[in-house]
Amino acid sequence: MVQFVHPARDDISLEGVLGALSDPMRLRIVKALLAEGDCLSCSAAAPCPEMAKSTLSNHFRVLRDAGLIQTTKKGVENRNTVREADINARFPGLLKAILKHAGE
Amino acid sequence: MVQFVHPARDDISLEGVLGALSDPMRLRIVKALLAEGDCLSCSAAAPCPEMAKSTLSNHFRVLRDAGLIQTTKKGVENRNTVREADINARFPGLLKAILKHAGE
Repeated sequence: MVQFVHPARDDISLEGVLGALSDPMRLRIVKALLAEGDCLSCSAAAPCPEMAKSTLSNHFRVLRDAGLIQTTKKGVENRNTVREADINARFPGLLKAILKHAGE
Repeated sequence: MVQFVHPARDDISLEGVLGALSDPMRLRIVKALLAEGDCLSCSAAAPCPEMAKSTLSNHFRVLRDAGLIQTTKKGVENRNTVREADINARFPGLLKAILKHAGE
């Protein structure tokens, strides 16, 4: 069974968050997850339908390792949600300040 | 004569800024430049005195390419200043939101 590793809130670093969001596709994934307000499967949150599965799952891994998203196995799907509370507790105002400029 | 290339304000990208700041040393350099409120030579803005010159100039290049700093040749020195007005015009609130969490 696949186990996903998520950093603890206190281990989320500013550099890690900025690095994970320094990619247009990952910014779009986070925006899509937040807009949905619910957890989404990887393919439902994909920024473009033609993206290769391996590319997509790599983006999700980077976001997960940085502490930006939580992934849980649900049946055959992986469900993803943004760790908004953790990120906002750790770096108040940061996520909002970044995302308001994403996709301009 | 060395010519430094700086992106135009409109060419500064969110991803580029986030990527450039996703490194603790580069965050410290930008903070040091802003704290000084004046332009600084590369060595004066170095986050640690023992940093190799090549490493340091690479950090400055990444910051310059992202549009975060302006470098000008002054005699034998390169003087650096944060392009605060450009970054704030392009992404209002972003730099402040990031830097307030840097070095925590």
